[in-house]
Amino acid sequence: MDKFLSNAERAEVLTQALPYIQQYNGKIIVIKYGGNAMINDTLKQQVMEDIVLLTLVGVKVVLVHGGGPEMTETMKKMGKESQFIGGLRVTDAETVDIAQMVLAGKINKTLVNLLQTKGGRAIGISGMDGRLIEAKAKDPELGFVGEITHINVQPIVDLLDKGYIPVVSTLGCDREGNVYNINGDTAAARIAGAVGAERMIMMTDISGILKDRDDPDSLIQRISVNEAAKLKEQGIVSGGMIPKVECCIDAIRRGVDRVTILDGRVPHATLMETLTDEGAGTMVYWEK
Amino acid sequence: MDKFLSNAERAEVLTQALPYIQQYNGKIIVIKYGGNAMINDTLKQQVMEDIVLLTLVGVKVVLVHGGGPEMTETMKKMGKESQFIGGLRVTDAETVDIAQMVLAGKINKTLVNLLQTKGGRAIGISGMDGRLIEAKAKDPELGFVGEITHINVQPIVDLLDKGYIPVVSTLGCDREGNVYNINGDTAAARIAGAVGAERMIMMTDISGILKDRDDPDSLIQRISVNEAAKLKEQGIVSGGMIPKVECCIDAIRRGVDRVTILDGRVPHATLMETLTDEGAGTMVYWEK
Amino acid sequence: MDKFLSNAERAEVLTQALPYIQQYNGKIIVIKYGGNAMINDTLKQQVMEDIVLLTLVGVKVVLVHGGGPEMTETMKKMGKESQFIGGLRVTDAETVDIAQMVLAGKINKTLVNLLQTKGGRAIGISGMDGRLIEAKAKDPELGFVGEITHINVQPIVDLLDKGYIPVVSTLGCDREGNVYNINGDTAAARIAGAVGAERMIMMTDISGILKDRDDPDSLIQRISVNEAAKLKEQGIVSGGMIPKVECCIDAIRRGVDRVTILDGRVPHATLMETLTDEGAGTMVYWEK
Amino acid sequence: MDKFLSNAERAEVLTQALPYIQQYNGKIIVIKYGGNAMINDTLKQQVMEDIVLLTLVGVKVVLVHGGGPEMTETMKKMGKESQFIGGLRVTDAETVDIAQMVLAGKINKTLVNLLQTKGGRAIGISGMDGRLIEAKAKDPELGFVGEITHINVQPIVDLLDKGYIPVVSTLGCDREGNVYNINGDTAAARIAGAVGAERMIMMTDISGILKDRDDPDSLIQRISVNEAAKLKEQGIVSGGMIPKVECCIDAIRRGVDRVTILDGRVPHATLMETLTDEGAGTMVYWEK
Amino acid sequence: MDKFLSNAERAEVLTQALPYIQQYNGKIIVIKYGGNAMINDTLKQQVMEDIVLLTLVGVKVVLVHGGGPEMTETMKKMGKESQFIGGLRVTDAETVDIAQMVLAGKINKTLVNLLQTKGGRAIGISGMDGRLIEAKAKDPELGFVGEITHINVQPIVDLLDKGYIPVVSTLGCDREGNVYNINGDTAAARIAGAVGAERMIMMTDISGILKDRDDPDSLIQRISVNEAAKLKEQGIVSGGMIPKVECCIDAIRRGVDRVTILDGRVPHATLMETLTDEGAGTMVYWEK
Amino acid sequence: MDKFLSNAERAEVLTQALPYIQQYNGKIIVIKYGGNAMINDTLKQQVMEDIVLLTLVGVKVVLVHGGGPEMTETMKKMGKESQFIGGLRVTDAETVDIAQMVLAGKINKTLVNLLQTKGGRAIGISGMDGRLIEAKAKDPELGFVGEITHINVQPIVDLLDKGYIPVVSTLGCDREGNVYNINGDTAAARIAGAVGAERMIMMTDISGILKDRDDPDSLIQRISVNEAAKLKEQGIVSGGMIPKVECCIDAIRRGVDRVTILDGRVPHATLMETLTDEGAGTMVYWEK
Repeated sequence: MDKFLSNAERAEVLTQALPYIQQYNGKIIVIKYGGNAMINDTLKQQVMEDIVLLTLVGVKVVLVHGGGPEMTETMKKMGKESQFIGGLRVTDAETVDIAQMVLAGKINKTLVNLLQTKGGRAIGISGMDGRLIEAKAKDPELGFVGEITHINVQPIVDLLDKGYIPVVSTLGCDREGNVYNINGDTAAARIAGAVGAERMIMMTDISGILKDRDDPDSLIQRISVNEAAKLKEQGIVSGGMIPKVECCIDAIRRGVDRVTILDGRVPHATLMETLTDEGAGTMVYWEK
Repeated sequence: MDKFLSNAERAEVLTQALPYIQQYNGKIIVIKYGGNAMINDTLKQQVMEDIVLLTLVGVKVVLVHGGGPEMTETMKKMGKESQFIGGLRVTDAETVDIAQMVLAGKINKTLVNLLQTKGGRAIGISGMDGRLIEAKAKDPELGFVGEITHINVQPIVDLLDKGYIPVVSTLGCDREGNVYNINGDTAAARIAGAVGAERMIMMTDISGILKDRDDPDSLIQRISVNEAAKLKEQGIVSGGMIPKVECCIDAIRRGVDRVTILDGRVPHATLMETLTDEGAGTMVYWEK
Repeated sequence: MDKFLSNAERAEVLTQALPYIQQYNGKIIVIKYGGNAMINDTLKQQVMEDIVLLTLVGVKVVLVHGGGPEMTETMKKMGKESQFIGGLRVTDAETVDIAQMVLAGKINKTLVNLLQTKGGRAIGISGMDGRLIEAKAKDPELGFVGEITHINVQPIVDLLDKGYIPVVSTLGCDREGNVYNINGDTAAARIAGAVGAERMIMMTDISGILKDRDDPDSLIQRISVNEAAKLKEQGIVSGGMIPKVECCIDAIRRGVDRVTILDGRVPHATLMETLTDEGAGTMVYWEK
Repeated sequence: MDKFLSNAERAEVLTQALPYIQQYNGKIIVIKYGGNAMINDTLKQQVMEDIVLLTLVGVKVVLVHGGGPEMTETMKKMGKESQFIGGLRVTDAETVDIAQMVLAGKINKTLVNLLQTKGGRAIGISGMDGRLIEAKAKDPELGFVGEITHINVQPIVDLLDKGYIPVVSTLGCDREGNVYNINGDTAAARIAGAVGAERMIMMTDISGILKDRDDPDSLIQRISVNEAAKLKEQGIVSGGMIPKVECCIDAIRRGVDRVTILDGRVPHATLMETLTDEGAGTMVYWEK
Repeated sequence: MDKFLSNAERAEVLTQALPYIQQYNGKIIVIKYGGNAMINDTLKQQVMEDIVLLTLVGVKVVLVHGGGPEMTETMKKMGKESQFIGGLRVTDAETVDIAQMVLAGKINKTLVNLLQTKGGRAIGISGMDGRLIEAKAKDPELGFVGEITHINVQPIVDLLDKGYIPVVSTLGCDREGNVYNINGDTAAARIAGAVGAERMIMMTDISGILKDRDDPDSLIQRISVNEAAKLKEQGIVSGGMIPKVECCIDAIRRGVDRVTILDGRVPHATLMETLTDEGAGTMVYWEK
Repeated sequence: MDKFLSNAERAEVLTQALPYIQQYNGKIIVIKYGGNAMINDTLKQQVMEDIVLLTLVGVKVVLVHGGGPEMTETMKKMGKESQFIGGLRVTDAETVDIAQMVLAGKINKTLVNLLQTKGGRAIGISGMDGRLIEAKAKDPELGFVGEITHINVQPIVDLLDKGYIPVVSTLGCDREGNVYNINGDTAAARIAGAVGAERMIMMTDISGILKDRDDPDSLIQRISVNEAAKLKEQGIVSGGMIPKVECCIDAIRRGVDRVTILDGRVPHATLMETLTDEGAGTMVYWEK
């Protein structure tokens, strides 16, 4: 495509991004990245490029990531089988150990590395570093599945202040030194609120919220937080979309202006969302 | 043109600018703007947009401007006729007064205003403010035509430090309070050297240095500072281009890496020059 | 006179200034300078010396200037005639252009230059720089006569912080890039309030407020802001003094402690006003 | 033991530490922690307590850790067998992946967590974060076994500046995004030099350098860097001790004053080494 | 005793101090030192060592001292006899002069000197320096016995900020330049409140508050501020202990958390009080 | 006298001080104050006023004081008789104790107090505070007569930085805690050199250096440091003037530009010396 664009046309495009750049310069954006959006390597490369570009135009990006399929894969490799109690997966000590290795070791550092090959400066931390995410057991029967009790936002503030992109894996800790596996979306929403983020982007591999689950053309592009809550009550939002919408609502309640459930399959969705007048997915906003 | 570009294509363009943005982030660029490039209003609007965009991606721009045709026009309006000695125009007290009005009053503030309607933060100063340009008479017979004796770069450093785009009109002063008209290209080169600029752009209304003055297709796109000096000696560079080339050489000698004689008639030439892999005009570089 | 003063007597005089120096050290004083006080060259020299001396004893001076007779003179030279609607002068585009040249080009830079030959460090700005004075048209029929809508005090704060004397010419701007001519006294009062000035001095070429307009010996030396308002209502303050008194009242309402209508014809009036126990003119103070 | 110590005696002990505390206040100490010293849990607890105590008396500690037996264990669990070429273990892509998980995920975060339960503030990074350790392949046949090409010390400086204990796992990266397994001792020596450390402690599970390998009573307590080099040449230092001694020499050559091969089995060896007049192990010092 | 302690045991003791060090790191402690606790030279040496050690583990110590018996001694040497009015000693001009010499000259500088031979950095000031303690006459008949009217805490803040131990002799001053002798305990309590101290230690040469004045075994180790007030009302606290207790109450009312009347005769009482779990004397605390 | 000066004349005088104020703004001046100049109370008041005024116009003053006759008086009062060995006074432990009381207690704090009643901000320190003056015994037979071994200039730098006038009494100390009486002139010269003072003023109660000791009209007003050295060699400088001249030479050798032996009996001599074009006394300058 690009070979048909003259340099003059390219410059024109850059100029059109000007008002968006001005709008987000110096603002904090929390990007939750995970799930299937992490698997497609081309997309991954683009997401990292987009993040580096955003930091260069003055946006302060915090990247929160989840686990993706690598967790399952590693557990399988290590011959660890999941146990279930009443249909819920139990996270025993060995499982949380594997989570720590996969999240804080494998995925976190790989993302840091990728950001840096694109020209960014990143430092990867977990919720244990600087005690970022304090947690307790959600339910003793489920083992080390954690519920956030407190966000100590200082490590993120310090890293942003020193000019790094903080890359966060969502493990929590308590005062006794226990480690907990924390839901990534929930953690991202809490961090976004604590750090005073302007926006939050939840990258997924679906189009966004559909009015009619069976009609891919029924995408809701913009919705107020109140309407979103209503859709949930009415059962229009359902399945895996429910916790996503709940996180959007939680982030907005904690002071974030806009949360977008972004279609990670669209090339440069992050950039378009932030620096052009159109996005891909569903944007939930605060109704004044 | 743009309506045919999808958002995805726009994002793609932004991404392509990434390496250039990284390269110039935090660097100082001095842009000399003047002559006929100042007359075309569409171009003026674009140059100002380009400058604001550069500051938003972290480039520190110093805008040095000349007088353009408004000087002549105002003198005519005020019934002031130029005197000549041996073919050279004499700058008497009344003429330097008009220069002060046109440069520091009319043009400087109009540029400041334009930058700000585009979203920039600018403060316009002259070579008198903070005693930026100290000068003496070049030749007593020519009156207040000044030769730079010293650049006090502090005011520019202070304004950059506070986040402003310094817009400079090139009037000089001496310790007795005399005001001098200073050649804009010369002043820009001296300021670029003093402030430690990475690059300097001299915006003109011609294509650049031609190998054959009569063949517009003979444009030299890149030339080393040594070769440029040679071309001048060989008489290939001639006429109004001679002082331009001398300023390029002077700026590079004072530590600037690259100076481009940029074709101001090309839309978004400044942006293309800085943020894409092609420029318009002739780039003179330091031969290591 | 001075040759009769021994050094010991001079030292004695300096010592007497001690309590006043202590009182104003670190405080901000806004000086409005304009009108006929600007014409007498000896006085002009003294005012500039006084300002530099005040900055050296730790007073932070902001110098706001008006246009004086040079505006009229330049308009005449340029063959521009004023139009009047209902007795009020119309400021068309060409007139505001000339105002920009005379105020921001001629007068502003000449004052900057003078301050610097006296040893000060000054930077001259207009209400357009850093969007200091935002304005709108007062009355569409009158053209570009502006009414202040907002003072963005940051540029003045930044220049004071970097150790410069900000010299301000009172042109305003709006978001569309229009330029407006702003009444200097009004602008000075607004700036004094916004910058948190301790005092404001309005330099004029009259003695001050007289109880009896026809009796030069009836000068009021000190008057509370309430009494001043009363005098205006009673018609004792009249003619050109009315807007002056209104500016005094406005400045005090915006937090300035004392405003003096100072007799600029008295040598070193500024210094005496600030550093001795007597002033020349009328001091309006806040009645606690 | 302690129950026999009165509070007065305890205070006496604290007072005796005074001169050592004074000596190291504000200094940087790099501690290399690994091998069998990491296995004994009681010792691990004490080492972490010692480090937190050192930071509280003003010592800036950088903790560099190695892999220990957990690497082997995890490889076994994952059914990964090591390949050997000419007796040397090959690190293929899968192996370096496991190293990343075990080092940056498991061990690093567990140490961070432990330091924090003791009251410290720690952030764990790898050589990839902020591109701390740049490396290249040592020998293409061995795969991703890295040789350090450059230390970018800024991330460590930034974390110390913000008051954290940097905990470093020694993985390296190159500009293409490859990850390398780096020898921990070598990395610690390079980091100690780059960060301007006063001292370096290499914690091991042996007594130190022995004059006679077979006589545990022949421990050398202090040795100059030159003598250490000589012992190596003479073959008195041999086996696994050779690379240790080489690291000592390298660190001292890069500006570290003293390097101690510390017997990690001795309780509170770190504290004693730093805050009392005796250490456990062999101290190599710079001979002036 | 110490020769029987191995280094390992010493390290153990240091480790036990860890939680206390963490608790007081960065906190301000005001120590009032005077009376007979100043006479015993061994104790004096230990108190100074304790203070230096506290500063090295991050505690900010302010040392306020009284006069002790040197005042009486010097007066006797100078042949100055005390006058009494109604049983109260009169402080005439000559007496306050001697106080100034003994307190600010002799004792203050000797303490500064001692702290520095122990490795501390100290600067000794009086209540006159930076006008720290403003006072007025308590009763004209008593002459220059002062009552505190205001604490200007800036000099202490400035010295702590620059890393010095401020050593304060409690002389007061008024705007006319009169000097007053100020009760040391009272001044210490006021300073502790003004500087936001966490704790205050009043070093004495008695055991503390006794339930039964005649039974040295009836020491109260911990008492709430309310209970202490009650004991005073009930007459259980009596004699010289009354003003001490009043100072404790005053300091706590001004925001200090805990005040200890410390038995200065116990070796390293200061250190034990702060860095172990037992103190010597009576601790008065704020009852939440 | 002053009642005959109009305010205008006063302002004129202030204006004449302008160039001198500009010259010394931000510069450090060390003033040695002692001897008979300290006795006359009117002069003392004026010297303190002058110092406060200098600090307000931006001069950084360090006041070093000597002992004056109060030392002798206090020794007499305390029944302490001086012993002499070979004509030189012996400073035994008791004598240095009295010196400490008189210098650091009485005189230092009284000067601090006086400066503050004039509106200054002062902190009085001795050579012991922050170990400012390190010394050793000059001659064991003379006891605690000290010779400066090192100046730790940090405490003075810190106090100037925080905006205080450091008032210094010239007692020295060594690492063992011994106190020494230090010659005030010598200490002032060393401090002036160490702190990078522009000028030093030695206030005395004589006119200055006389060409002919018996002719009061033969005052030398300006003399180069080389000529001063010559005069000393030729015996023209003699008696008590010899050490003064030696201090001048020492201070200049250590980088001070000008040292003035100032006639303290002349009212406002300090101010005149610094802020007018004439001084009282002899100025020794560096001959370039």
